[in-house]
Amino acid sequence: VQINVLSSTRDMVQNQYAHKTVIVVDVLRATSVMVTALAHGCRGVIPVESIREAEHLKQPGDLLGGERGCRLIPGFDFGNSPLEYQKADIHGKRIIQTTTNGTRAIQKAIPAYQLIAASMLNAFACARAAIEIGRDLVIVCSGTEDHFSLEDGLCAGLLIDEIQSMGVSEIAIDDFGLTMHAAYRQASHQLEQVLMTSANGIKLTKLGLVDDIRYCAAINQFEIVPILCGNMLVRF
Amino acid sequence: VQINVLSSTRDMVQNQYAHKTVIVVDVLRATSVMVTALAHGCRGVIPVESIREAEHLKQPGDLLGGERGCRLIPGFDFGNSPLEYQKADIHGKRIIQTTTNGTRAIQKAIPAYQLIAASMLNAFACARAAIEIGRDLVIVCSGTEDHFSLEDGLCAGLLIDEIQSMGVSEIAIDDFGLTMHAAYRQASHQLEQVLMTSANGIKLTKLGLVDDIRYCAAINQFEIVPILCGNMLVRF
Repeated sequence: VQINVLSSTRDMVQNQYAHKTVIVVDVLRATSVMVTALAHGCRGVIPVESIREAEHLKQPGDLLGGERGCRLIPGFDFGNSPLEYQKADIHGKRIIQTTTNGTRAIQKAIPAYQLIAASMLNAFACARAAIEIGRDLVIVCSGTEDHFSLEDGLCAGLLIDEIQSMGVSEIAIDDFGLTMHAAYRQASHQLEQVLMTSANGIKLTKLGLVDDIRYCAAINQFEIVPILCGNMLVRF
Repeated sequence: VQINVLSSTRDMVQNQYAHKTVIVVDVLRATSVMVTALAHGCRGVIPVESIREAEHLKQPGDLLGGERGCRLIPGFDFGNSPLEYQKADIHGKRIIQTTTNGTRAIQKAIPAYQLIAASMLNAFACARAAIEIGRDLVIVCSGTEDHFSLEDGLCAGLLIDEIQSMGVSEIAIDDFGLTMHAAYRQASHQLEQVLMTSANGIKLTKLGLVDDIRYCAAINQFEIVPILCGNMLVRF
């Protein structure tokens, strides 16, 4: 298995993924929201790029979630805090989600053979699923507006760590992946504190959302793999 | 001091560096060669992009060095192994150097307020010089043909490690720099072995150039800071 890690959506070249599994990572907070929503019984999450598209797709019973500039979108049911999705009654419902970075990365990765949404919360389950699928793997760090984000890089490193610990033979990892793995190993004993030092960590802290960072820094809380079927992420 | 780290030359936006110090890193092997040549008494190293330019600039007494595809260029005095520059008599001479990645990164960084060439071999000296200069800092990982290279990322992390250990107050480091620092800390106890696992490490090993990797993986061997004056890197 060849594993490549992309530092941001800017590195994505479309139509290069048709035969590969793509894992999209947006720890703070889009993919953490997806995992949490599926863990609390929602039927699926539909990631879309624009607010207009979200409103257009909405059918009776659907819920709208997402953010612009880390804030709630007027008229939407939820913001982009995974904690909101723990509390509300989302059982059996579809959530249409639009965020600044994570949903964009997913849109660009749609040609993939399989597309998985990973976060710290479900890294082990995603790594195992990707190995089961058996294709070459591209891990996309969604980042922030075309820039690399520390938390996504560390999650890529965690995914590689989980894959390595499965004892899969003949894994080849590119230089960026090897470096993310080393960074994750170094940070793993104090993941929460390291995430606080990142640009997004500092921004969320200023907005009073420290609890979101703490929640998103916890590894392997859920055995849930959000996988794209058609236009909706469902449980694999 | 703001420290930004760029993952490859592709991330370089020209004319953004006029007021900043740029540190260019190409551990395997262009900047390791520059440091070694200056440490062994050469007058200066002139980095150029093309073979033609190197031949055009050559005056009596000058030496030509460099590589294409890791190999010696026909008619040149030296290849791109730092070990060659240890042995030969280069005292007082100018070396005109052209390589695939490192010299290109330097050409793109020429608008900088000051431009320094760093490697593992002289990281501490470069970090101290950069802090003395006192400007915001951009560390460019030259990489390989627009792709990130592990060894350059770890060297960026080492530079940040040295700067942090100087106790400079009010340092702000971007997410990519924080991640490279974590990766360096993790790899620091077995730098040579980790460099062997990188794409360039594997390539050089296949070419029988393991000694080059070993040599380039040794940190802080020289108190030499190659700095650009006009078109030539000289000792700072």
